Amino acid sequence: LEQKNFFEIKGLINDLHPADVAELMTFFDRDDQVVLFRLLKKDVAIAVFEQLDFEHQENLLNSFTDDKVSEILNVMSPDDRTELFDELPAKVVRKLLFLLNSDQREMASILLGYRENSAGRIMNPGYIDLKEHYTIDQALERIRKLSPPEDMIYTAYVTDYQRHLIGSVTLRDLVLSPPEKVVDDIMDTDIIFVKTDDDQELVARTIQKYDLLSLPVVDHEQRLVGAVTVDDAIDIIEEEATEDIHRLAAIQTPEDEYLHSSVVQKVRDRLFWLVALLLGGMVTSFVIQNQSVLIQTVVSLSFFIPALIDTGGNVGSQSTTIMVRGIALNEVDSRNIFKIIIMESLIGSLLGGMLGLVGFFRVVLLREPVLIGIIVGLAIWVVVFISNLLGMILPLLLKKLKFDPALSATPVITTIVDVIGVFLYFQIARIFMKF
Amino acid sequence: LEQKNFFEIKGLINDLHPADVAELMTFFDRDDQVVLFRLLKKDVAIAVFEQLDFEHQENLLNSFTDDKVSEILNVMSPDDRTELFDELPAKVVRKLLFLLNSDQREMASILLGYRENSAGRIMNPGYIDLKEHYTIDQALERIRKLSPPEDMIYTAYVTDYQRHLIGSVTLRDLVLSPPEKVVDDIMDTDIIFVKTDDDQELVARTIQKYDLLSLPVVDHEQRLVGAVTVDDAIDIIEEEATEDIHRLAAIQTPEDEYLHSSVVQKVRDRLFWLVALLLGGMVTSFVIQNQSVLIQTVVSLSFFIPALIDTGGNVGSQSTTIMVRGIALNEVDSRNIFKIIIMESLIGSLLGGMLGLVGFFRVVLLREPVLIGIIVGLAIWVVVFISNLLGMILPLLLKKLKFDPALSATPVITTIVDVIGVFLYFQIARIFMKF
Repeated sequence: LEQKNFFEIKGLINDLHPADVAELMTFFDRDDQVVLFRLLKKDVAIAVFEQLDFEHQENLLNSFTDDKVSEILNVMSPDDRTELFDELPAKVVRKLLFLLNSDQREMASILLGYRENSAGRIMNPGYIDLKEHYTIDQALERIRKLSPPEDMIYTAYVTDYQRHLIGSVTLRDLVLSPPEKVVDDIMDTDIIFVKTDDDQELVARTIQKYDLLSLPVVDHEQRLVGAVTVDDAIDIIEEEATEDIHRLAAIQTPEDEYLHSSVVQKVRDRLFWLVALLLGGMVTSFVIQNQSVLIQTVVSLSFFIPALIDTGGNVGSQSTTIMVRGIALNEVDSRNIFKIIIMESLIGSLLGGMLGLVGFFRVVLLREPVLIGIIVGLAIWVVVFISNLLGMILPLLLKKLKFDPALSATPVITTIVDVIGVFLYFQIARIFMKF
Repeated sequence: LEQKNFFEIKGLINDLHPADVAELMTFFDRDDQVVLFRLLKKDVAIAVFEQLDFEHQENLLNSFTDDKVSEILNVMSPDDRTELFDELPAKVVRKLLFLLNSDQREMASILLGYRENSAGRIMNPGYIDLKEHYTIDQALERIRKLSPPEDMIYTAYVTDYQRHLIGSVTLRDLVLSPPEKVVDDIMDTDIIFVKTDDDQELVARTIQKYDLLSLPVVDHEQRLVGAVTVDDAIDIIEEEATEDIHRLAAIQTPEDEYLHSSVVQKVRDRLFWLVALLLGGMVTSFVIQNQSVLIQTVVSLSFFIPALIDTGGNVGSQSTTIMVRGIALNEVDSRNIFKIIIMESLIGSLLGGMLGLVGFFRVVLLREPVLIGIIVGLAIWVVVFISNLLGMILPLLLKKLKFDPALSATPVITTIVDVIGVFLYFQIARIFMKF
């Protein structure tokens, strides 16, 4: 296809949806991406650029003249531009800011001034503002004059002369209302809003809870400064889920997507916890070392250590996973903790009992003495009960201490449960064997 | 507050956002919920009912007369109604269908006829249909006549006389276009749509990719039958993330939220995999059992089994987690598998080397012989390399075989890695000790 058939390609890619062109471009190498991008019409080009991943955006910016870069940056949507600037080195951003015209430069600087992952940093300042005395026709006239893109047009905000947010009006209500009415008659004054320094997760959850298309953002004086739209909320919810999933497996996820980072970065993201856990496991080795005489006498005790610690680890991983997700989805909070503890104790006993029985039969099936079977079965029961409760309480505790509950990763639980499990196992063995 | 102060409460709760009332109601017991609900104005009541969790909806339905139930069910949004019917027993649904008027009953039956979790099952049939020859004014007139709720009003669909979908028009374009134009001039004919039997995950991903507010659903003859809105897409993306998170911890998540299910259900969701894994772990016990003479001779070999298998399990868990999430987010596909395998092999060797070194020092620190340290270090290196690759390949394989990649749960990887790890550990030990 790349046989200089530019004219045909041009027709083809300008007809596609920008999101598809952006996806298509990732299949080509860097130079071809630049060629492809040059074939796009200006407005399509901006839309495609907004949809590209950061690494591809950076590549394109590097290959363009300052004029072309300035053209793109001045027209692209302010929230997408902030996202791009967030990823670029500070030096490059300073250079790029000079390519913006003064209005856009001021806007970009303000947005970059808000804390990362805050509402202010992700909002779009291009909202529609109306005054309460506008007639429906005047309001529609103003919307036509501003003609904002689709994501910002369906909710207009009503402000007073100090720019305080006093109400919101949907385009639906404007279109459905008789033209003789004024904005004041139809506006909703119970406005749901967030503050510039609220966390992006709260922003996304609020949009989700109230089924909003856009959510207004106000500063500390209640003045309207921008709005966050539902398409950003989806991306945030997905990003936060990925972060939790990675944390649960003890991976420190960086800002950008894991699969796009370098080998060194990937190793670094994973190494810290792996080393910490391996060192933490020394305690387990130490506990077993202390029982070396017992093991030498009853060597078969050592056969079932992996099964015991794995089962404990699995149960603990399950309960910690359930809690971390439950907390993230706001299903778990302080008012039902007590109920959850009781319930999980019951679940732990039941699971432990059944798994202990399976463990007992496992030992007997491997033709080991029944006594060993009883020891293994009992140890599994106790370990399952403890690790279930521990996996549940640790995320709650982390939350209470204002840490991310997902730091209670499943490998951390596993390592803690190992120590407890092995210790109890040998204690039970000593009692039964009168050693 | 519940001192028969009904009048005051009535004023209070009718002013709140329905999503807040729904949340508030969950704090009260069943009877009070019914009392509260009766204090709501009719339109607020419907909106609150739609926002409630299934268990609370069911409770309310049980406490109402048939007339009241009929009133709610006939007016509530068709997609929310399908969701409610999905959870109720078939017998109850049949009874409830008779409380609907004939139009609504037909609509409900059609929606219930589509496969669960398909686009047809979650769509709302209340879309706006326009004809291409309509003027802008006629189009706006039709929208005013239908006056659909907010989620369905911003995108209108253009159909021919056989109801085939031929274009879409946003309310933005209708409001911004000069009134003398016709729908044909401004409609977008490159329509993005899904089919009734497409999976809900594809629906949500499509809405996310193209930043849509609503996505049209067509039947097998390309006839428009409904639309799915962005608020449903958010919920689906979150639901699918929860399912993956739970699967990764080997929990079989049921349809409804885990925290709301009974103890028996919770135990059942977790028991199957725990028993399977405990039984699978028999192979590990068997491998160790075969080395009992070696262990009795060099008892210190047994001290480091937990560290070895935990490290292997942790590394495997990390790589399987990364892959499962990468596949879910469409970041991993067939065209970059080869590159990923090479990269992960490199990562595995690096991680293994460093962790092996840490393992070696651990052994020496516990005052065991250097030879044991070398054996443990080497075994960790090999196990880390293998489990990293295994954790990566298994989800890809499951995907290739059309299974859910998340079935490659971290405990499954751990159990497989145990067997391989313990086996290799003793083989390495035998070589070095010339046993």
